[in-house]
Amino acid sequence: MAHLSPEDFRREAHEVVDWIADYLADIRSYPVLPNIQPGELTDKLPQAGPDAPESIERIMTDFSRLVAPANTHWNHPRFHAYFSVSASGAGILGEMLTAALNVNAMQWKTSPAATELEQVTVSWLRQWLGLPGEFFGMIHDSASIAVMHAVAAAREQACPEVRKRGFEPNLILYVSEHAHSSIEKSAMTLGIGCDNVRRIATDAHMAMDPAALSRAIDADRRAGLRPFAIAATIGTTSFTSFDPVAEIADIAEREQVWLHVDAAYAGPAAMLEEMRPRFAGWERADSIIVNPHKWLFTPVDCSLLYTRKPEVLKRAFEIDRPAYLAAAEHPRAVNFSEYGLALGRRFRAIKLWFVMRSYGREGISAILRNHLRWARELAGEIRADSSFEVIGDTPFSLVCFRYRGSDEENRQLVERVNATGKLFLSGTMLQGRFVIRLAIGNVATTKADLDLAWSTIRQCVPEIASQARG
Amino acid sequence: MAHLSPEDFRREAHEVVDWIADYLADIRSYPVLPNIQPGELTDKLPQAGPDAPESIERIMTDFSRLVAPANTHWNHPRFHAYFSVSASGAGILGEMLTAALNVNAMQWKTSPAATELEQVTVSWLRQWLGLPGEFFGMIHDSASIAVMHAVAAAREQACPEVRKRGFEPNLILYVSEHAHSSIEKSAMTLGIGCDNVRRIATDAHMAMDPAALSRAIDADRRAGLRPFAIAATIGTTSFTSFDPVAEIADIAEREQVWLHVDAAYAGPAAMLEEMRPRFAGWERADSIIVNPHKWLFTPVDCSLLYTRKPEVLKRAFEIDRPAYLAAAEHPRAVNFSEYGLALGRRFRAIKLWFVMRSYGREGISAILRNHLRWARELAGEIRADSSFEVIGDTPFSLVCFRYRGSDEENRQLVERVNATGKLFLSGTMLQGRFVIRLAIGNVATTKADLDLAWSTIRQCVPEIASQARG
Repeated sequence: MAHLSPEDFRREAHEVVDWIADYLADIRSYPVLPNIQPGELTDKLPQAGPDAPESIERIMTDFSRLVAPANTHWNHPRFHAYFSVSASGAGILGEMLTAALNVNAMQWKTSPAATELEQVTVSWLRQWLGLPGEFFGMIHDSASIAVMHAVAAAREQACPEVRKRGFEPNLILYVSEHAHSSIEKSAMTLGIGCDNVRRIATDAHMAMDPAALSRAIDADRRAGLRPFAIAATIGTTSFTSFDPVAEIADIAEREQVWLHVDAAYAGPAAMLEEMRPRFAGWERADSIIVNPHKWLFTPVDCSLLYTRKPEVLKRAFEIDRPAYLAAAEHPRAVNFSEYGLALGRRFRAIKLWFVMRSYGREGISAILRNHLRWARELAGEIRADSSFEVIGDTPFSLVCFRYRGSDEENRQLVERVNATGKLFLSGTMLQGRFVIRLAIGNVATTKADLDLAWSTIRQCVPEIASQARG
Repeated sequence: MAHLSPEDFRREAHEVVDWIADYLADIRSYPVLPNIQPGELTDKLPQAGPDAPESIERIMTDFSRLVAPANTHWNHPRFHAYFSVSASGAGILGEMLTAALNVNAMQWKTSPAATELEQVTVSWLRQWLGLPGEFFGMIHDSASIAVMHAVAAAREQACPEVRKRGFEPNLILYVSEHAHSSIEKSAMTLGIGCDNVRRIATDAHMAMDPAALSRAIDADRRAGLRPFAIAATIGTTSFTSFDPVAEIADIAEREQVWLHVDAAYAGPAAMLEEMRPRFAGWERADSIIVNPHKWLFTPVDCSLLYTRKPEVLKRAFEIDRPAYLAAAEHPRAVNFSEYGLALGRRFRAIKLWFVMRSYGREGISAILRNHLRWARELAGEIRADSSFEVIGDTPFSLVCFRYRGSDEENRQLVERVNATGKLFLSGTMLQGRFVIRLAIGNVATTKADLDLAWSTIRQCVPEIASQARG
């Protein structure tokens, strides 16, 4: 049996659903980080693909016996490394339908449902985030790709000739020293060059210093260079600090440069009135990124790019439409592929629509508030333990802390904790010191999970302490 | 009920599976192209997202009542426009698991299973395609994004300083006049500029003329410009013509420029010994793209980039690894995000693994052979009808033909046919004339579907003829 008939599919898919439901039910029994060596899975798999068809049963057996145990379980409620993400049940259902329809949402005509559901869901989320109606939105796969589009639009605004002529020297982009590496990668990709990305100093709260930004722009202008864009961050990757966007927006306006706001992780928190002050000024940005696949319970990949200048974004990627892509013009028929590099686009709006409707604004808000409260509470517990210190003021749902010991001891502590399989932590360098990061964001995480996480961390301390003595 | 428990998910997911199985069973009852006006779906959906949670049952009701009927059914066996694609049952099962695991395959450590299964599946497919072992492979979302990476690597090879310094004037890229628009978009994105993309003339078979290519490179060198890459195509979008890659590889070698081969659509046909001659020389390319989401029964998105120079590709996107992405070095631990722009990457290998194992090399080969044979047979039937002419020699599974009438009548014929809902055709311009394209590639397409397609096309002829008279 090579090709599955619809009835074959039905039978096998029910089996797969049961596997997934069991996985979600038992997920805490998996070690978050697998105990595996590089190459171990490869060595267990055949070196060549099969000549003859194999049954789904056999593939699923290998999946559960070999692949799942070699997996780092990002959907585990105690995955606290990097940023904690979720494939909620509603989101998984959406992905199932996306796979079945298999739409390429390149033009309205090729995908009226995909195009319009994308418009509708990004508009719904825009309203929940408190952003004004002039923002045009679209869904990208990852924030790295989305920010490349934002910077391309900024480049287009500064030098419309770059699209045809290519090179354009001396364009300068400003970010804080805590900005995400994808912005530097975008500059590299776009031919701006990473030497032309200025990393502006931050203050004690790890927020961009607007005075330093102003000085850097002045210095570059005096040197004959061409400032063209500022990328501010609300919710930096290392620490979730937030740049003073309102002040930066004043500078961007005065200097007439593009203002991009990276809120890939923290964006959903703008749904909460009490968190809005941290987003003050972002409504003045030229472009904004928010990732529902980070803190909005939507499976990867789903990164939203909003811009108030869609015509500039479109021009940045404008080509003479090839004959095989002929499309009628209609004011309400948006062809999303014209606003970016990729022609092919998945129908990613379904999962976002499922998540937004299934939880509702109130359901999502309640979960985000839990995450924020638990982060503050955990920070309080950590502060209360004299062996530890908390770094900063826990602006969102990430707790940054240190064991009061050397960087090496902190690194070892993370390794010990991760080796228990009970949770997964990551680390970073902040102000010259190694810092432990515990990110909260999975939709299934409970307070009990966090209690277990914290008690596990404490239990691992004697081990590193004894090692340090020994 | 906002958050679905694993048991809620199980119940709802079984319902969704039944919807999908019914959809696949009844798919021929849907009009391929929906009869809908721009804005029609939007107007039926609420202008704002819901405050309170809604049940999955209610969301699914709206999905089947509003969204599915507004969908262009890419998975329909008589979707013959653009390129015909498939979400096979096996591929959908793979996507379900990808959604549930929700892995970000950025580093080996964050995703040993995703990283190694990606390595294994791209190696299996490489062997099936007859490509040598020195090709490194990885999965991207779309060919547009993948080709941007290939051209970025070519740029890096020509000017390693571009990554830091940015602009680099006078880099010239060569494609045939039938190359895909994504290559031009890549040049635009990368700061090469579309003016610096040379469109080389093609011969009667719509294949790039190597002599014209040589002359263009010579002329550019004499003008002080810097040829850096040639992108050849096997299976062009309009006509599926194939450039003479072996001869082009000689030129690339002599000129010391990067050779990219776009086989996004036709690539899988290299699995068939009898088709290998059309791929002669591609094994000498620096980079190759093959899209399993086109003609290999894998749901979008899944585009494979192979390169024999992974170290150049990696250097093109090299940054100082940020502290929050610390990773141990190990010769067998590949961090795929270091080979491209995107940090976040879905676990796309599962669906490809399911498809390759479920069909096996023999199962896939048999289906590809059917598609190729049916295309030749259909071309024969069209040729036998004196009202029609076939364009060219049907190199792969796309039939290009014309009604013997004006361009306008041919456009009308496509519209009439598409309005029946029975099939979906697209058109293009070839050698100055409008041409109808009928692409075969869906895994569920049968000879009976193609018979119905052809009879529907013939039935629509009197309508346009009478309109022309009236």
